Amino acid sequence: MTAPPPEDRLPPRVRVVEVSPRDGLQAEATTLSTDAKLELIDRLVAAGHSTIEATSFVSPKAVPQLADAEELMKRLRRAPGVRYPVLVPNERGLDRALSCGVTDVAVFAAASESYSLKNLGRSREETLRDYVPVVRRAKEMGARVRGYLSMVIADPWDGPTPLRTVVEASRALADMGCDELSLGDTIGVGTANAARDVVRALVSAGIPIERIGVHFHDTYGQALANVLAVLTLGVTTVDASAGGLGGSPFAKSAAGNLATEDLVWMLDGLGIESGVDVRRVAETARWACGLLGREPAGRTTRALA
Amino acid sequence: MTAPPPEDRLPPRVRVVEVSPRDGLQAEATTLSTDAKLELIDRLVAAGHSTIEATSFVSPKAVPQLADAEELMKRLRRAPGVRYPVLVPNERGLDRALSCGVTDVAVFAAASESYSLKNLGRSREETLRDYVPVVRRAKEMGARVRGYLSMVIADPWDGPTPLRTVVEASRALADMGCDELSLGDTIGVGTANAARDVVRALVSAGIPIERIGVHFHDTYGQALANVLAVLTLGVTTVDASAGGLGGSPFAKSAAGNLATEDLVWMLDGLGIESGVDVRRVAETARWACGLLGREPAGRTTRALA
Repeated sequence: MTAPPPEDRLPPRVRVVEVSPRDGLQAEATTLSTDAKLELIDRLVAAGHSTIEATSFVSPKAVPQLADAEELMKRLRRAPGVRYPVLVPNERGLDRALSCGVTDVAVFAAASESYSLKNLGRSREETLRDYVPVVRRAKEMGARVRGYLSMVIADPWDGPTPLRTVVEASRALADMGCDELSLGDTIGVGTANAARDVVRALVSAGIPIERIGVHFHDTYGQALANVLAVLTLGVTTVDASAGGLGGSPFAKSAAGNLATEDLVWMLDGLGIESGVDVRRVAETARWACGLLGREPAGRTTRALA
Repeated sequence: MTAPPPEDRLPPRVRVVEVSPRDGLQAEATTLSTDAKLELIDRLVAAGHSTIEATSFVSPKAVPQLADAEELMKRLRRAPGVRYPVLVPNERGLDRALSCGVTDVAVFAAASESYSLKNLGRSREETLRDYVPVVRRAKEMGARVRGYLSMVIADPWDGPTPLRTVVEASRALADMGCDELSLGDTIGVGTANAARDVVRALVSAGIPIERIGVHFHDTYGQALANVLAVLTLGVTTVDASAGGLGGSPFAKSAAGNLATEDLVWMLDGLGIESGVDVRRVAETARWACGLLGREPAGRTTRALA
């Protein structure tokens, strides 16, 4: 037996971070009831998920789809061993989350300037500075913190994002206490080597691979190939959304997240454990898409139907 | 500068074999007029394609969508430097093709027994034996021959296809004179390492990598990741279909071919030359899907719309 070629050296286990209840539902035209959201989360747990992004404590005016964050988190039946991170945009959001018993939070920054100004209302540096007290307080309260960094490959207005600024922003999030980063190619333009370049740059800058997650969008059909590319670098945290929730399959502006079912089909085929049952995820995706009045974007869900 | 890691060693150039006019249209519910088919092919040439599978000389009863093969090939305006292979099922089909001035033909076999019996009406071995005189005569007439081998990863009835039988059938096709093979994961179940295993097995059996093409279906969303995986082995011939034509995005039984536009988006991003203009392919996909009354399956086409 010779050693397998490097491209076959894949991690034995990947943690799928299921983002459909937050990143998914916030971008859908239809708003689900709190009951339906709780059922979605329960179904995802039953499918084997160990990390489920549950909701967001942003302003209900900004994201009416998730205006029931408090009620949802208070009613949530927490399953043993499952983490339920929630997005918090600022200290007020953190207070609201903590008052509901939340133990996992996430902050959301951008690696690029224009997206930061237009979508977060502040410069990249201001956003990161404003998160310092949020993350510090979350850590003091014993919470685990995930730091989203969006636009790590390109920005719709600024074009390609320099690796240097991705590294700077990542370092800032890691230094302020984020336990884990989620690197987002938010507009989905990146291809495999660009994805690898970002991960390698962070590792070179001293951020352990165990703290680096990826969050790819399927706008140009590249998400799964990009995941495959970074798995070979040792990445073991991958965000995905059941049914590709998070965007209509037919609208560019809201192009979908990587569909969990397609990701898990690949992981299963590669012999990588995720603990997630692809058929149950597909059933959940079909069920949720039925409520939302849309087709699942995940091809595996259609194939298994 | 250190040498790039092996997974970054990609070929500088890939030849995309555009299969939409044959493999695509034969599976669509709507039959295009000969004029529309000729315009499709012209648009694909204008988009930069150098190999376009034009039609099939199978029985018009079996594939009514392509019953105009003779007329199409007689009226086709051949562009310099472009190859227009056509499928021929037997010697009669070859005669019909040659009488229309065809210089590139393809035969279609299966690596698995059940698919061969059910879809080609003969055993795997009989199919291969029957192609011997077809390929010999085609070569004698100076034609270039492509050998399709379907079900190289699994068969819907037989399950996983043993590598040994894939190698045997590939060797048979190569030995009878096929200039190039196209390895098809026809039901789209395979993942990256399975795709690599097939290619490696053929190379180990003495088939030069230059003669090995791949043909992946996106039934479970794996096609592009699988292409990426085999590019690192040196594969430089990849089949794809504009718009993912060849199956409804919502029907399992006819799940689509890899969409050319998603493939070319990846090749462009990886700096791999294909000569194909992604925007013109996307326009062509949109135009053709409009005629067929369906949505393009290629995500890039939706994103660029």
